[in-house]
Amino acid sequence: MGQPLNPDPRALRHALGMFGTGVTIVTARDPAGALVGVTASSFNSVSLDPPLVLWSVARSAWSCQAFTQARHWNVHVLSVDQEALSNRFARQGADKFAGLELEDGMTEAPLLRGCSARFQCRTQFAYDGGDHVILVGEVLGFDRSHHAPLLFVKGGYAIANPRAPDVSTAAEAAVEEELFNENLLGFLLGRAHLLYMNAFRPTFAQHGLSDADFYILSLMSLRQPISQVELAEHLGFTGVDTGGGCLRQLEGRRLVAKDGQGLYTLSGDGLRVIVEALAACKAVQEDLVDRVGAVEVASLRNLLKRVILATDPGLPKVWGQGPQGRPGS
Amino acid sequence: MGQPLNPDPRALRHALGMFGTGVTIVTARDPAGALVGVTASSFNSVSLDPPLVLWSVARSAWSCQAFTQARHWNVHVLSVDQEALSNRFARQGADKFAGLELEDGMTEAPLLRGCSARFQCRTQFAYDGGDHVILVGEVLGFDRSHHAPLLFVKGGYAIANPRAPDVSTAAEAAVEEELFNENLLGFLLGRAHLLYMNAFRPTFAQHGLSDADFYILSLMSLRQPISQVELAEHLGFTGVDTGGGCLRQLEGRRLVAKDGQGLYTLSGDGLRVIVEALAACKAVQEDLVDRVGAVEVASLRNLLKRVILATDPGLPKVWGQGPQGRPGS
Repeated sequence: MGQPLNPDPRALRHALGMFGTGVTIVTARDPAGALVGVTASSFNSVSLDPPLVLWSVARSAWSCQAFTQARHWNVHVLSVDQEALSNRFARQGADKFAGLELEDGMTEAPLLRGCSARFQCRTQFAYDGGDHVILVGEVLGFDRSHHAPLLFVKGGYAIANPRAPDVSTAAEAAVEEELFNENLLGFLLGRAHLLYMNAFRPTFAQHGLSDADFYILSLMSLRQPISQVELAEHLGFTGVDTGGGCLRQLEGRRLVAKDGQGLYTLSGDGLRVIVEALAACKAVQEDLVDRVGAVEVASLRNLLKRVILATDPGLPKVWGQGPQGRPGS
Repeated sequence: MGQPLNPDPRALRHALGMFGTGVTIVTARDPAGALVGVTASSFNSVSLDPPLVLWSVARSAWSCQAFTQARHWNVHVLSVDQEALSNRFARQGADKFAGLELEDGMTEAPLLRGCSARFQCRTQFAYDGGDHVILVGEVLGFDRSHHAPLLFVKGGYAIANPRAPDVSTAAEAAVEEELFNENLLGFLLGRAHLLYMNAFRPTFAQHGLSDADFYILSLMSLRQPISQVELAEHLGFTGVDTGGGCLRQLEGRRLVAKDGQGLYTLSGDGLRVIVEALAACKAVQEDLVDRVGAVEVASLRNLLKRVILATDPGLPKVWGQGPQGRPGS
């Protein structure tokens, strides 16, 4: 039946939040030439012929006048990597453009980088929209990238998960009862991980290195010098030998060196081997983006992070905490 | 720099598709009282005070006149279970409302059920929007449910996945340029897989078994008797020793037995150990369904399968092909 309008605007906001949207930053120049920009989720396409898009700017926004007076503005559809940028342009004050690399576009309005899509517009109409002004613009130019787009749903940032074709077939439902079936998440994680490794393992296996060696050298590319104890704290969960056998072998091959305090450092050869392996690891990822899709890979990353956070027994952080050095030469 | 407007409207549509949206059905009655309804992704909120929303109807739509003449219309934000309804209302013709249970709302416009949110509106403005008419309505009433909303991104239906917090660092953007950062898919796959293993490894490690032994015994729970050659074909991609060392150790521990033709079979002890380990593996999955969500785990499975298919070098199938026995007793 629907409730008559609730005087509490939060209830309306919550209901409106059920309609998911992308996130955009709209930019322009004020009459004095200063850059203005705001985060907006009210963007949408309107017309293909002529090509029109719209968004709404709050009358209370500091930059409202600049936008309603501007002849041109650019809409940037943000990618999943631009959450921080979204937050920056959603706040008032300071110089929102500080430190950003801008591009020149077709008009005086500034263009941001790294977006999923961009639309360069000329104001066509400015309509009354209550406490907002609805700006309709003609699209003069546009481009898009392969960066997966950022979403805003139910009051929080989100990533699109392509609708899965039904995973379970009738045959699968029959095996679903079995303890070990091909929907067992542990099997799928293991197979995906080890097939991924299989695709670039030759880069380090040709040097006689095992997966365990690869894990150790990867960690050392971020954290060194490192003690055997710290290494075991980081890698114990992997089940590989952190008792010193691998380290001694790596030392014997002169890929790592041990100092007087028992701390290990990558040698020049060790650095070359691990950089080569990590570059190959990244190349597999790029291949997967091509074959599986950018949105899918972004979604997969996001889900893997949630599994990692849900299963982490309290591991030390790999990045950003504690003593840390750049790889030696 | 952006490309000047491409005469191909598909390019513009593809770029516009990077902006994700929810999916709505808007309903009304025509002057004769007949029900009309269309699927629209052009919905958005405009103003909170007064409460205004908008959407655009194509001038070419059969029901355009009905909507522009109607005093009232209802917007239904569709849930993930209403994909079929979205498709039904996106097509022309037939009776779109056939068989649907309708509710009476505050106005003559019909209300559909099972949606994520609904907004009952009175037309406030009808603006020129090129080949569309922009309808702005005052929200007279609204409601929302707990059904997750359906999304439309890059030309396909999608589900929103809440953005996971960073696994290991807050300085994600800063490390993005590094070869090895925490968005490297290989890192995330490995960490998720090995943390998952870590959660049930004790069940087989207490019997002195390694991850490699677990892979071998798991395979044998599905395929036995098995030769060393077949085992290597199945497990070579894992990087574990399939040269016979593991098998000899398992034989020494009387977990597997070798017959006169060199074929291996699980012993009763071997079966007990692997059934216990697989049950623990499944328990971790159930725990993850609780902690991460059933929809998320289903999505993750689906995406892992796509990675597996994209990286498979042509492995023999684990299930459903070739000679295969149930575990011996």
